[in-house]
Amino acid sequence: MLPFARVAVIGMGLIGSSLTRAIRAKLPTVHLTVHDADAAVRERVVDLDLADDVTDTPGAAVIDADLVILAVPVLAMMKVAAAIAADLPAGCVVSDTGSVKGSVLADLSEALPEGIAIVPAHPVAGTEQSGPDAGFATLFDARWCILTPPVDADAFAVARITEFWTRLGARVEVMTPEHHDLVLAVTSHLPHLIAYSIVGTASDLESVTRSEVIKYSAGGFRDFTRIAASDPVMWRDVFLSNKDAVLNVLQRFSEDLTALQRAIRWGDGDYLEALFSRTRAVRRGIVDEGQDTGDADFGRRH
Amino acid sequence: MLPFARVAVIGMGLIGSSLTRAIRAKLPTVHLTVHDADAAVRERVVDLDLADDVTDTPGAAVIDADLVILAVPVLAMMKVAAAIAADLPAGCVVSDTGSVKGSVLADLSEALPEGIAIVPAHPVAGTEQSGPDAGFATLFDARWCILTPPVDADAFAVARITEFWTRLGARVEVMTPEHHDLVLAVTSHLPHLIAYSIVGTASDLESVTRSEVIKYSAGGFRDFTRIAASDPVMWRDVFLSNKDAVLNVLQRFSEDLTALQRAIRWGDGDYLEALFSRTRAVRRGIVDEGQDTGDADFGRRH
Repeated sequence: MLPFARVAVIGMGLIGSSLTRAIRAKLPTVHLTVHDADAAVRERVVDLDLADDVTDTPGAAVIDADLVILAVPVLAMMKVAAAIAADLPAGCVVSDTGSVKGSVLADLSEALPEGIAIVPAHPVAGTEQSGPDAGFATLFDARWCILTPPVDADAFAVARITEFWTRLGARVEVMTPEHHDLVLAVTSHLPHLIAYSIVGTASDLESVTRSEVIKYSAGGFRDFTRIAASDPVMWRDVFLSNKDAVLNVLQRFSEDLTALQRAIRWGDGDYLEALFSRTRAVRRGIVDEGQDTGDADFGRRH
Repeated sequence: MLPFARVAVIGMGLIGSSLTRAIRAKLPTVHLTVHDADAAVRERVVDLDLADDVTDTPGAAVIDADLVILAVPVLAMMKVAAAIAADLPAGCVVSDTGSVKGSVLADLSEALPEGIAIVPAHPVAGTEQSGPDAGFATLFDARWCILTPPVDADAFAVARITEFWTRLGARVEVMTPEHHDLVLAVTSHLPHLIAYSIVGTASDLESVTRSEVIKYSAGGFRDFTRIAASDPVMWRDVFLSNKDAVLNVLQRFSEDLTALQRAIRWGDGDYLEALFSRTRAVRRGIVDEGQDTGDADFGRRH
């Protein structure tokens, strides 16, 4: 079965433009209509030929779609959903790509009319780059896409979205929005928060120059700067809309870091070595599961 | 000028074995003698043909060297230096590759006889892998090597070590051990400590399974696991021997993270967006300076 024949994507940044590229590559008969709030992005999308139609308003993009995907920052979902509500055709499925699911499900449920099937989704994939030029068709290959349908979801709509992401190369998992937001607070939101924080700390030291931080970054720091180069508005919205889960895991992290601090202060080498040995196994698990390359240094060229 | 003709390397892990490979590739006339405390490593070094001679004791490796490089964990320096002290030939230069310089300079100065020129060095390069199989000849290309000679250092010895590392492809900088230890606390030690800590935190949550942490790690977490897979003994020693500087920058980091926590709790989006925008510039600096690839996702294959 072809899960959807006419797909509309709203928001043509890294994720939205990767989505249309992946659809073009793997579901080539799908008719693609897209919109972006930024006129310069719309022009670029035309130049890159990323869709069949590029519309000037979000409403115009969705009028004959059987699937609408909102690929905008999480706090923009409500406004975009309200803007398309009157133009959605009956039987249409609305989904998204947001990194937070509790607030998105609530916002979409409030803004969209009865009778529209809502199946929120989060493809756990991305790079530190932004905009329509940064996307690529294989971004979702072998990555997980998490669906968080409401309790009264249309089962057929969930099945179609599952088929859609599977055809794009992703693996699909279903969970509650609450559990998603807790899991991603650990595997994505907290790492980003910490990366942003340490890059800020390093930039602000009086005793170490910015130039020194850059020159000697190959000792580990540079890995954090990649994540801390991610889209600022997208990430601002993630932290504001997943506040409780982020504060919860941040508290755990702070406690663990304080224990490490104490071990260093008191010279407890056994404590340090035990932790540092344990964490190796997690890396091996990630490489074995195909979620990262096993090449040294991420396979960076030397 | 060929800076050294007979080089001894003690410790044949990632750094020591990269060093002998780089010497073989770039200074092929140098005679190479090596030792490792682990008999299995010594056998592997013979199999891999990484040196002209592999000796059973550290003393035997250094007897006719004009340069001895200690590539062992920082807290093992003192013991190795004491073990070679009686066998060092007059005029020999002793250096190292340790990630901490204050304690190493003190330890070498105490353990080595008068008349031996000591020029501590730290090539700021590495991967998360360990052992003689993990090394490669280009590891130091375009990376910085920091020298921290004592105030009364032999200027000619410093010039020869500078020439040596330059010939191996590195760029050389000279600074005090104290400044080195502060700079590296920021660019290397703190990032490793935080990576180890967050990987530990994620493994210990009751509400999120280990399997979920691994599956959804592509959201950012997997980047931290690479660093947290680094050699446990090497890093234990780094934190124990650079305690003051690490605790100092860790305190700064904790304050900054607490400020971020507060901004999230109070919904201060402007604060978050301002920080997240500022940190992008640091990434650009690192890529522009050639200290990391500008390819998305470190150039990971997709």
